[in-house]
Amino acid sequence: MITVDLSGAQSFFNEAGPDYATAAEAHRTLSGATGPGGEFTDWLSLPSAFDARELKSILSLSQKIKKLGNILLVVGIGGSYLGARAAIELLKTPSHNTICGSGATEVYFLGNTLSADAINETIALISDRDFCVNVISKSGSTLEPALGYRVAKALLERKYGRATAKKHIFVTTDAENGTLRAMADAEGYESLVIPSGIGGRFSVLSPVGLLPMACAGIDIEAVMSSASEAMLTLDLRSPDNPAWQYAATRQLLYTQGKNIELLASYEPSFRYMAEWWKQLFGESEGKNGIGIFPASLEYPADLHSMGQYVQDGPRTIFETVVSFANSRTSLSVPFLMGDPDQLNYLAGKDFSQIAKIAKQAVKAAHISGGVPNIEITCDTRDEQGFAQLICFFEVSCAISAYMSGQNPFDQPGVEAYKSNMFSMLKEN
Amino acid sequence: MITVDLSGAQSFFNEAGPDYATAAEAHRTLSGATGPGGEFTDWLSLPSAFDARELKSILSLSQKIKKLGNILLVVGIGGSYLGARAAIELLKTPSHNTICGSGATEVYFLGNTLSADAINETIALISDRDFCVNVISKSGSTLEPALGYRVAKALLERKYGRATAKKHIFVTTDAENGTLRAMADAEGYESLVIPSGIGGRFSVLSPVGLLPMACAGIDIEAVMSSASEAMLTLDLRSPDNPAWQYAATRQLLYTQGKNIELLASYEPSFRYMAEWWKQLFGESEGKNGIGIFPASLEYPADLHSMGQYVQDGPRTIFETVVSFANSRTSLSVPFLMGDPDQLNYLAGKDFSQIAKIAKQAVKAAHISGGVPNIEITCDTRDEQGFAQLICFFEVSCAISAYMSGQNPFDQPGVEAYKSNMFSMLKEN
Repeated sequence: MITVDLSGAQSFFNEAGPDYATAAEAHRTLSGATGPGGEFTDWLSLPSAFDARELKSILSLSQKIKKLGNILLVVGIGGSYLGARAAIELLKTPSHNTICGSGATEVYFLGNTLSADAINETIALISDRDFCVNVISKSGSTLEPALGYRVAKALLERKYGRATAKKHIFVTTDAENGTLRAMADAEGYESLVIPSGIGGRFSVLSPVGLLPMACAGIDIEAVMSSASEAMLTLDLRSPDNPAWQYAATRQLLYTQGKNIELLASYEPSFRYMAEWWKQLFGESEGKNGIGIFPASLEYPADLHSMGQYVQDGPRTIFETVVSFANSRTSLSVPFLMGDPDQLNYLAGKDFSQIAKIAKQAVKAAHISGGVPNIEITCDTRDEQGFAQLICFFEVSCAISAYMSGQNPFDQPGVEAYKSNMFSMLKEN
Repeated sequence: MITVDLSGAQSFFNEAGPDYATAAEAHRTLSGATGPGGEFTDWLSLPSAFDARELKSILSLSQKIKKLGNILLVVGIGGSYLGARAAIELLKTPSHNTICGSGATEVYFLGNTLSADAINETIALISDRDFCVNVISKSGSTLEPALGYRVAKALLERKYGRATAKKHIFVTTDAENGTLRAMADAEGYESLVIPSGIGGRFSVLSPVGLLPMACAGIDIEAVMSSASEAMLTLDLRSPDNPAWQYAATRQLLYTQGKNIELLASYEPSFRYMAEWWKQLFGESEGKNGIGIFPASLEYPADLHSMGQYVQDGPRTIFETVVSFANSRTSLSVPFLMGDPDQLNYLAGKDFSQIAKIAKQAVKAAHISGGVPNIEITCDTRDEQGFAQLICFFEVSCAISAYMSGQNPFDQPGVEAYKSNMFSMLKEN
């Protein structure tokens, strides 16, 4: 299971330390669905309550998509794509589409940009080959994915004709309401349902994330059974609960003036997990004029870009480092004749050992520079580890937001630009 | 040339406004090389002083590399790879290695990670094919690229044998000093020189960035002639100088409590430009306990993740949006029979037009939410635009750092983890 090591943060704590009493209360509010947004807490029981038949039907859909062309174009924005993309990069690789060969389906993303150049490039990458589309939107009325759907549909119709194109479109949306549901019903698309008691940023372990993940060759049954176990573990009502530790520590550090959190990892494949995490925490906590600013770094690369700032800039930051205890592969440092760089003392050592020492060195340097350090460790970069991390961050986030007096499940600020945009588009 | 539009920031200014007198003084300090770090200001004259023969020799080296295999593995960290990677993603595409075909050389990066899994994946992507290596390091003593060199060298020797492997290694390093120079001389590698009066984060328009860029098919002669013109324009001593405007505005906003700067772009290909910018500003200004925290967002994707925080979180942020006036390609919104999503009023409109309106809507929303907005506009996403952006940000950064009383050209904080790491590695 996930462990949280607070040894690098404790010396920064005030006398009171992390407020576990308030964490306990926040946890009660969350699990009792008695707080603001309580109607959006179904993600807590989703993994254990998930229908085994629905999981099978998602798997058979992924097989169908594979037979139809081995490329899936996901149309979605925000919580409708970040979780799946995070899973594919972490569990497969950021180069999944280059190296998956014919063994798994390539997965591309559309509907999250308005750049003609970027959309045209995605079209160029896939349009000569057979492909399917998964449109993911609770409502169907968000501009970017709605336009993405139009582009994808036009491509498919040009390729296959109107009747066959319909068989290449799969929709993930609300069971009853919204534009996308209406279109799916009218056109006869196969569809999956987004459960109603779950917001976008908490939806990765629903059909929203599961279909693209299954297509990419991720074992979604392993993900869901691990998530089910993880949710049970995270229900522990004690300061031993890693979610309490993380939530209470970040709230304590925030009250002590640490208002930027750097989520760092030593695995380049973690990049989109960090993007998913930014939405989760940024959107849940960043409201009413408060909230920790979530940023991410990749170590050691970014120690040579942002490292100076972390070490020596304003002392308003803390860092949370996510590691995997086991590397998947090994690689030893080659011996160099004559030892011109004087590094032969490392020859034969595995890079994973060196990375572990680097991590300890960075931690010590940052602590001495005044940056509190939280270490989150997960066993392995596999389906189980992914599920554990997702559940851990979701539970921590809801507890942390409730501790700071926020509704973790709304996002009123996202509407401002949307309503501006629609009225300006109509004028032009 | 670059334009800076401050219309979205002005309503936030205090009565005094941007301090152009101090900007002028900082500019004098910079161009006279009279301030701290003055010995590292040769990047200012680099484009105009760059030897045409050296440019030709970099181009012929890129042709040689193409003949030797059409893959270049760049070994470098921080300023030794970020600029080239930014150029390739912006001017070619983030998918360069997938779509460049045989027309240009694929470019991969190593020496910036300690992840065995990530290094093994890069090896798997290239090792079955012919490839060359460009090792880039001023000293050669930084751990990550030094280990990357060992890995790359061992791969080449296994493939080609010791004698031929040497012909596949190209080194970019100091003219006289350091481990890498000594190794290059001892082994007889072809080498390029990093000019001595230029620090890593200001080195993209030197051989450091130019060889990988040339290999990727970027017109480096156009880059350098545009940079030469841009530097001339940016030497203007007046509040009309866009670098003064940007530098003085960010310093003003910082004194008014805006301590996080979000660099946003609507082009996904801008991602590594933002990473390069983070190093430039973070490392130049983040020291002695002060400095604006540099973060980046991709719009509109991140409006659906970080948008809530930007709109409604703590009012300690400002945003700088970089746009290109002209899109390279066009794409119009398809018409949808029956108008089920009620967006047919946009049918036939180009995505670039829609993106422009979205940008104005976001700007208005963020300003009304209390987020000052700076707009930086560049004509086109081409060699000229790239050169203009690089020069603009470099000059702005140096002026801004001097305005805040910092030495823009040192990075004392980067040493802390390095020295920790070497002593801990020797103990283990």
